[in-house]
Amino acid sequence: MREFLKVASLEHALACCERFSVVGTETVSLDHAPGRILARDVACPADLPGFRRSTVDGFAVCAVSTFGASEAAPALLDIVGSVRMGEAAAACVGRGQAIRILTGGMVPEGADAIVMVEHTEALDGTSIEVSRAVAPGENVIAADEDAAAGQILLTVGRRIRPQEAGLLAAIGLVDVLVFRRPVVAILSTGDEIVPPGSPIGPGQVRDVNSTTLAALVEDAGGIAVRVGIVHDVLETLSSACTDALAQADTLLISGGSSVGTRDLTLDVIEALPDAELHFHGVAISPGKPTILARSGRQAVWGLPGHVASAMVVFRVLVRPFLERLAGLAPGEGAAWRNVPARLSRSVASAHGRTDFVRVRLEDHPDGVLAVPVLGRSGLLNTMVGAHGLVRIDREAEGLLAGATVSVLLF
Amino acid sequence: MREFLKVASLEHALACCERFSVVGTETVSLDHAPGRILARDVACPADLPGFRRSTVDGFAVCAVSTFGASEAAPALLDIVGSVRMGEAAAACVGRGQAIRILTGGMVPEGADAIVMVEHTEALDGTSIEVSRAVAPGENVIAADEDAAAGQILLTVGRRIRPQEAGLLAAIGLVDVLVFRRPVVAILSTGDEIVPPGSPIGPGQVRDVNSTTLAALVEDAGGIAVRVGIVHDVLETLSSACTDALAQADTLLISGGSSVGTRDLTLDVIEALPDAELHFHGVAISPGKPTILARSGRQAVWGLPGHVASAMVVFRVLVRPFLERLAGLAPGEGAAWRNVPARLSRSVASAHGRTDFVRVRLEDHPDGVLAVPVLGRSGLLNTMVGAHGLVRIDREAEGLLAGATVSVLLF
Repeated sequence: MREFLKVASLEHALACCERFSVVGTETVSLDHAPGRILARDVACPADLPGFRRSTVDGFAVCAVSTFGASEAAPALLDIVGSVRMGEAAAACVGRGQAIRILTGGMVPEGADAIVMVEHTEALDGTSIEVSRAVAPGENVIAADEDAAAGQILLTVGRRIRPQEAGLLAAIGLVDVLVFRRPVVAILSTGDEIVPPGSPIGPGQVRDVNSTTLAALVEDAGGIAVRVGIVHDVLETLSSACTDALAQADTLLISGGSSVGTRDLTLDVIEALPDAELHFHGVAISPGKPTILARSGRQAVWGLPGHVASAMVVFRVLVRPFLERLAGLAPGEGAAWRNVPARLSRSVASAHGRTDFVRVRLEDHPDGVLAVPVLGRSGLLNTMVGAHGLVRIDREAEGLLAGATVSVLLF
Repeated sequence: MREFLKVASLEHALACCERFSVVGTETVSLDHAPGRILARDVACPADLPGFRRSTVDGFAVCAVSTFGASEAAPALLDIVGSVRMGEAAAACVGRGQAIRILTGGMVPEGADAIVMVEHTEALDGTSIEVSRAVAPGENVIAADEDAAAGQILLTVGRRIRPQEAGLLAAIGLVDVLVFRRPVVAILSTGDEIVPPGSPIGPGQVRDVNSTTLAALVEDAGGIAVRVGIVHDVLETLSSACTDALAQADTLLISGGSSVGTRDLTLDVIEALPDAELHFHGVAISPGKPTILARSGRQAVWGLPGHVASAMVVFRVLVRPFLERLAGLAPGEGAAWRNVPARLSRSVASAHGRTDFVRVRLEDHPDGVLAVPVLGRSGLLNTMVGAHGLVRIDREAEGLLAGATVSVLLF
């Protein structure tokens, strides 16, 4: 059996991911921007909303015209016009005057406050009584209240959520420069593997990893390209890898779990053009036999053949790697994907490696409970029953029941 | 000013959402199943993995042949063949015999355990010494260990994550019956509103709500159809609503915030064919002027014109409604979208309504902190700066600094 050449700590493995550069950029229309990652800072081209707006239905006035007004001694104002929505007022407001305005309307020149319609009484078509004084600025949004011209609204590396998309709409940015979605080729190896849609013979199993990894890649913001199943023959696997790398930023090979297959994958990876092995073996469980190498500027991952292990490696290593490749700013959103919870029972762990325990989350009146999902090596049942992973650090020998843990959601 | 006809509690408003039925079903290929919602229970068609598999590289044996074996007194076994990956073994294993096998290989007839290669020594090509005894079943996965034929693996209403997709691949289910994605028409009203790509005149603002709501709908698993901007004229709005409902399961109208515009929206909704008003006004802040009505079997929502209010209403009312429409099973995933956190400062609230406070999450060594995002009525800056909402119940008059809160993520 060939030894692991460089068993890396999880921290070292994550540091190796930093050696790959961010993918290029492209311009997408605003409709397609949500979910994408901004490739440059966005500055506000002009004041927002751009004019003084009323926040109520009422009358635009000079605040001073209302000073001292009360129910007992209302102020009498002349109506000199009305503001139409989406237009500037034709008239200007002076002392003792008022102009009708609706919520969102443009405050006319001369006015510095809006009296709510509830605090007025119409005398006839031409004048009103105001029963409550307004202060200057009351019920008025300033022209630059949402944002001032030149202000940086969003910075590079920000993921565009619905509200960021809304902000881009507000400033009229309809062509948005974003990072490309990283293209990830997915290749399954193993002579016993058949496609999910094929009839199955004795000793054969269906390809689960391609489907699972493709879904994980798409969830992480990448574009999955399925290369399919490649047999455990050096030349075949080698040329399949070369073809895959020609059309992708990154290649994920998930291999059979036998030592022979793993060695074959390593041989193939090391023989790729301009290849450099970053690590072979990571001190995590599950997921020890993970490989990361570079071929040219592209990354090649060798993932465990066991799908549950491959999923864990994806969650703790490949996803952070892809997010970096995709241009996501460090710390952007990641921290609160972790849900704090209490561990329902004690879990043992081996010293010297970082363990990841699958847990199911249960909502309890006194907080969220993380219940370890037990079960032997079952392919998928432990993952289907789990919501996330609890990490047990290298130095720890386990976690006690009741411990506060941070659950890394899938 | 027209009064709110039926100001509903949040609980009543949520109960009204239950009156609408789930959309129909469709069949999608496995590649397109991730993210969709299962429309029927999935039973296991045959045992999984379907044959006894080895979990190690080594030799298939009768366990009894190794009983008492040790380094000092190894058991001597004859090699009678080897298992090829993806094939049944030609030979059968008897007492005193061994067959070479790799991880994932099909355990041959007669064998009931696998000796790891590390615990064997090859004498010549035809026999091995075994230095450690194995128990029956050791290093063997049972034919039905992942799942037994007939077992219900996944139930209707389950969201298909990468691992559920993997499980479908494992059983060869390549055509998956899922619920249709609900089609949601989005319509903005307001004479002052122009499309994001158009030049803007005095008193005009760009349509922010269509972009924001469309992104929210897609995030919630729906298909957004943008109807565009409709002017505040009864006949125009009326016929736009009728056209929109002809192509959608649900219509979201987000209107100008003036009382006149709100009244117009209500008039239009009430005049739709077979219309029934469920509520007009909800005791929440922000979001009070929300409308829900039925026209035929379809739902029509009137949302606040202010985009931050519309987003809150979407998060607490429309999204649960859409998830129900989309067939998502109750409780499926929702609870742990909430992140427990400590409130950084006290927040006051009015008695008699449910308040939603925007918060930013900050990771601190002693846990996650929820920091209320302050700011006046700014269109979007408070939403862009926030990660989620903290709910303050109707009976509470606020929350104290340090209180444990559950943050509803956007």
